[in-house]
Amino acid sequence: MSGFPEALSRAAALVEATLQDEIGRLPDSQVRDAMAYAAQGGKKLRGFLVLESARLHGIAPETAARSGAAIEAIHAYSLVHDDLPAMDDDDLRRGQPTVHVRWDEATAILVGDALQSLAFGLLAAPEAAPTPEARLDLVASLARAAGGGGMVLGQALDIAAESAEAPLTLDQITALQAAKTGALIEWAACAGARMAQADTRPLATYARTLGLAFQIADDILDIEGDTALAGKRLNKDAEAGKATFVSLLGLEGAKARARALVAEAEAALAPYGPEAHLLRDAAQFVIARRN
Amino acid sequence: MSGFPEALSRAAALVEATLQDEIGRLPDSQVRDAMAYAAQGGKKLRGFLVLESARLHGIAPETAARSGAAIEAIHAYSLVHDDLPAMDDDDLRRGQPTVHVRWDEATAILVGDALQSLAFGLLAAPEAAPTPEARLDLVASLARAAGGGGMVLGQALDIAAESAEAPLTLDQITALQAAKTGALIEWAACAGARMAQADTRPLATYARTLGLAFQIADDILDIEGDTALAGKRLNKDAEAGKATFVSLLGLEGAKARARALVAEAEAALAPYGPEAHLLRDAAQFVIARRN
Repeated sequence: MSGFPEALSRAAALVEATLQDEIGRLPDSQVRDAMAYAAQGGKKLRGFLVLESARLHGIAPETAARSGAAIEAIHAYSLVHDDLPAMDDDDLRRGQPTVHVRWDEATAILVGDALQSLAFGLLAAPEAAPTPEARLDLVASLARAAGGGGMVLGQALDIAAESAEAPLTLDQITALQAAKTGALIEWAACAGARMAQADTRPLATYARTLGLAFQIADDILDIEGDTALAGKRLNKDAEAGKATFVSLLGLEGAKARARALVAEAEAALAPYGPEAHLLRDAAQFVIARRN
Repeated sequence: MSGFPEALSRAAALVEATLQDEIGRLPDSQVRDAMAYAAQGGKKLRGFLVLESARLHGIAPETAARSGAAIEAIHAYSLVHDDLPAMDDDDLRRGQPTVHVRWDEATAILVGDALQSLAFGLLAAPEAAPTPEARLDLVASLARAAGGGGMVLGQALDIAAESAEAPLTLDQITALQAAKTGALIEWAACAGARMAQADTRPLATYARTLGLAFQIADDILDIEGDTALAGKRLNKDAEAGKATFVSLLGLEGAKARARALVAEAEAALAPYGPEAHLLRDAAQFVIARRN
């Protein structure tokens, strides 16, 4: 794990500072305060993936930080909306009261909406990538990853699964997760290649396998994790009788599948050689993490 | 009113077809169906403003239709979220059950979220404007107009006003409306100038005065209107004891103010000469309309 935790912390600090600076430019309002609150904390793994993929393509961290902030703004908005009573109904997020608990539901809806707008504004500014074409590619691809063919589709499939008569099959849950969490992780990992207008395919393969491993690890943590460390309620899916990778593969089967996916993710990084060691470490991290 | 109703209908048809086509490209899902439902109907005045400002700058309708669809997607998302029980709690919109009534609240939250992503995707595609710089300007300016310094700020101020101890002053309600409805109308009217990378100032002045007149007319319709024609519940603000332009200026005072603003809006169009006759007619329409 040579240097990965430190690199993740450094990336998280730079990305959060960039995001908070952008939020701070908005007119003073309760929504702005609640946006700043929602953007705090978390691992910022997506922001880290942006910075690392940018580094592999010779893009400066200050440039990449805008895309890192954009993807974390989208992630933060999705958590705020997902925590609402009509969705997952969660009171706790990153160890703090959720936005609708701390303020109210209307504020939480608006905070999510404004964080999404902010993300696209971050990418359209000249500082976001060397060329206009690259910036447009970042905008267009984020719109696809976040929208009704990406993350939102995954959330909708997840909600539909709750009222479905039969639990999901392994193929269905894999497709659901590829959209729900995979689309944003893939965007993050490919962002550096997009900034440099380079081939995104190796990083897309890395991200697809990593994202699935990440979700399997989440299902394992939901069973084995520690609420205090996780900063959110655990064991929810099992209580709700939802199909998860653990319920479908068993605990040991799920762990073996996650390890195999991580090996695939590492193999996909071959074109980048030793320079990609932090992305390799990140892949190991997703199955070793405790929160 | 020479030709304005026909031009508005033609614009609405082109913009809605473009928007529905883009929604139709998403994978089949309940969220996609509900997005298509939410995008139906309405006057599409914002889409019309985009097409007309584009025509004044020599931009083809097919090009401008993408920006028209984008602003109508943002407008539709804001209505879906605004109608939620935690916000305005409305059952009826454009004469039909609101999305959360027809489906459920979770679907309505996701539909709004996905419509916002779709808007930015529409603008980032090569078909949206002749140059990459113009497309980025459309994206950046829409992010500002829709976000925490624009429409969302206005919605937050509107909610805060409901629990404020004193009713809003005329200055406060003007600032609130400039953000809540004015920001999107201004974006729509300036979009054609942005596509051509021309000066947006005359159209911005037109839009600011038109937007305010539009809101005053809404307050007047809320008192004098016909629910069947409006397709939504009326007399809500008066029942809630909220300050409106009518409560602050009186019915006749509000009508006089709206007429003065329309005259200002028409004057701002002088640089465009007779070519701008449909925008002049649109300004007359906002105070003559019955829904």
